[in-house]
Amino acid sequence: MVARSPAQTPGLIDRGLRWLLRLRFGQAPLRFALADGVNLLVPSGPPVATVLLRDRSTLLRLLMHPESAFGDGYSSGRIDVRGNLVAALEAGYRAIEGDAKKPRAFRLYRGHSVRASRANVHRHYDVGNDFYRLWLDEQMVYTCAYFPNPESSLEEAQMAKMDLVCRKLRLRHGERVVEAGCGWGALALHMARNYGVSVKAYNVSREQLRHARDRAWREELAGRVEFIEDDYRHIRGRFDAFVSVGMLDHFGLENYGALSTVIDRSLDREHGRGLLHFIGRDHARAFNAWVRRRIFPGAHPPTLSQAIEGVLEPADVSVVGVENLRDHYAKTLAHWRLRFEQSADAVRGRYGNEFTRAWRLYLAGSEAAFRTGSLQLFQVVFARAERQPVVWGRDRGDSNGVS
Amino acid sequence: MVARSPAQTPGLIDRGLRWLLRLRFGQAPLRFALADGVNLLVPSGPPVATVLLRDRSTLLRLLMHPESAFGDGYSSGRIDVRGNLVAALEAGYRAIEGDAKKPRAFRLYRGHSVRASRANVHRHYDVGNDFYRLWLDEQMVYTCAYFPNPESSLEEAQMAKMDLVCRKLRLRHGERVVEAGCGWGALALHMARNYGVSVKAYNVSREQLRHARDRAWREELAGRVEFIEDDYRHIRGRFDAFVSVGMLDHFGLENYGALSTVIDRSLDREHGRGLLHFIGRDHARAFNAWVRRRIFPGAHPPTLSQAIEGVLEPADVSVVGVENLRDHYAKTLAHWRLRFEQSADAVRGRYGNEFTRAWRLYLAGSEAAFRTGSLQLFQVVFARAERQPVVWGRDRGDSNGVS
Repeated sequence: MVARSPAQTPGLIDRGLRWLLRLRFGQAPLRFALADGVNLLVPSGPPVATVLLRDRSTLLRLLMHPESAFGDGYSSGRIDVRGNLVAALEAGYRAIEGDAKKPRAFRLYRGHSVRASRANVHRHYDVGNDFYRLWLDEQMVYTCAYFPNPESSLEEAQMAKMDLVCRKLRLRHGERVVEAGCGWGALALHMARNYGVSVKAYNVSREQLRHARDRAWREELAGRVEFIEDDYRHIRGRFDAFVSVGMLDHFGLENYGALSTVIDRSLDREHGRGLLHFIGRDHARAFNAWVRRRIFPGAHPPTLSQAIEGVLEPADVSVVGVENLRDHYAKTLAHWRLRFEQSADAVRGRYGNEFTRAWRLYLAGSEAAFRTGSLQLFQVVFARAERQPVVWGRDRGDSNGVS
Repeated sequence: MVARSPAQTPGLIDRGLRWLLRLRFGQAPLRFALADGVNLLVPSGPPVATVLLRDRSTLLRLLMHPESAFGDGYSSGRIDVRGNLVAALEAGYRAIEGDAKKPRAFRLYRGHSVRASRANVHRHYDVGNDFYRLWLDEQMVYTCAYFPNPESSLEEAQMAKMDLVCRKLRLRHGERVVEAGCGWGALALHMARNYGVSVKAYNVSREQLRHARDRAWREELAGRVEFIEDDYRHIRGRFDAFVSVGMLDHFGLENYGALSTVIDRSLDREHGRGLLHFIGRDHARAFNAWVRRRIFPGAHPPTLSQAIEGVLEPADVSVVGVENLRDHYAKTLAHWRLRFEQSADAVRGRYGNEFTRAWRLYLAGSEAAFRTGSLQLFQVVFARAERQPVVWGRDRGDSNGVS
């Protein structure tokens, strides 16, 4: 028998922590270690990255609340990752998501009164246009792009996305469009410039609207694009098309009825049609706890059935088509992350280290979530029931749109 | 004052019937008259057709149970339509569907044990292959076709539909496919012949399978296509692709869990994907009462959210895309109806007048339902969550698939 020295014999608490860590992440190709170099968990195969934990209390928090504790720990620096951050997060997601695949109802969200919606939006978007300008494309489109090629630039892909949306809506010169949640205004301006439509675009972020209105004046589109600082629930009038890109996922299911009412009352009775573009899930589940608390308070990614049942079925419309652009969002996020890292020193100088690390994690984590299929990106096209446009096979293109 | 003669003064019962008729169909461009020529209801504008009722008891039944009484009355000849039957039915649907647009739960269906499913299928499909051969395309495809052009023949359009399904499934040589509900076998044979896959195709209709197996032998595909007389719930084994065209709409929501289990257990864990093609609705509502009783006992057209929530979300798959082919089904039914009318004398000679009129009504009524948007046709593509195929913009074709 070989005698073990006291230094090699971990205490009871450490053995318990390791056992729990193995239980939770034992299948993941991740090495876990304490900052002093002590290994906590070594995977059977080669690790894709090493997760460094400053101390045992950080490890305990991670075991108890993995999503929150990882987010907060990484942001503050108590947790660090050596190796590829996205790959590490993918591995972590796969490990903790096994039981998440079973559908669960999730209806307990922060209320979304008009006032609460404003507060949620301000928190995220009013960080300042300067910050987003550092890493978004030149038109400041903060939603999933659509890549013509894997090698396309982010600028090309955002243009292609806006064009895809316009083609799906079959916009014609002179038509009236309403946009709910218009961000910095790129899509509204694109529709007016390239499709000759007039647009009313709603947003509650003053910072974003200031930028959007400046652009409209500079580009001589102010006569055809009206940017309105108001909640989508206050949309009035009839329109030929309704479009909302990246808004539905910002609020909870309890608001879907209101959106449904707005769509039904806004759409032309005869030929009205619309498009919803949103982050969703395969199975009913809230966003990651840390994202929900620190990044997008009140946000929720619905399943496709929740969105259709909650928003479209109560309205007098038919679903014309759905497309899942998940892989395009993973690629969009990779572009954003690359640009963000190129500006990381500037971000750190202005907003501090914790903010910088939190954003790095949010961008890398979102990319990992779209890569693993934990998140999806749905574009849903709908139209008044009797007037769906017919698409004959010859108009589809050769081998395509077929997924 | 002008004295009215007794002949011009309708009795109290007639006045009541007319009042009810106006209440129910007053907005429709339809003239209603008794067979003896007495007008019951004359629309304000030009009528698209005249509905002739043999007697007042027929009218009373029509007012009380419009769907059932119209179907039974038309089949037996107590009700007739002068003018365009499809246009008359469209007008009737629009008139009685106003309040149907509000969603209602509808969960009370005839049970679908394996035995009941067999009974339901036998009733409709075992009328005899000879009957269907009279008016289906030469490959006997009894589901919505896909028209390359509005002028395409039914044969071309059914070939195009089968090809569309194969392309959506991205079938590759040597893969294994399972088909749930294979009809007369055309799609299974098409996949094996043109995409080099091996197919297990399930069906509970012996009549259909006899035809399918004959074809497999004649076309030397019996080695690669196995036609199995069994319920889809007994599917065993793992496959690269799962396909079901026109089966989901044949049973009630209470069976969706079983189908979900079959899909999840049949699909390859890595790259499994599938397609469901079914008749659906914009709002939760059963089939027309007459269709439910006389044509498809136990059938139910789900909303898109019912199908996704009930079948796909419980399985470990993502929805990749959805396409609504409603207009293609209206056109398919117009072709079937034209061919049916060309064989109407033969049908009447063999099956009798009531059968012939019932089928005429069923085909015309289905066409009207797809035209008005009362029914939809959904193709839903799904795939294992992590392995959805990426479709870059360049692969989409020029302006298409965008609806």
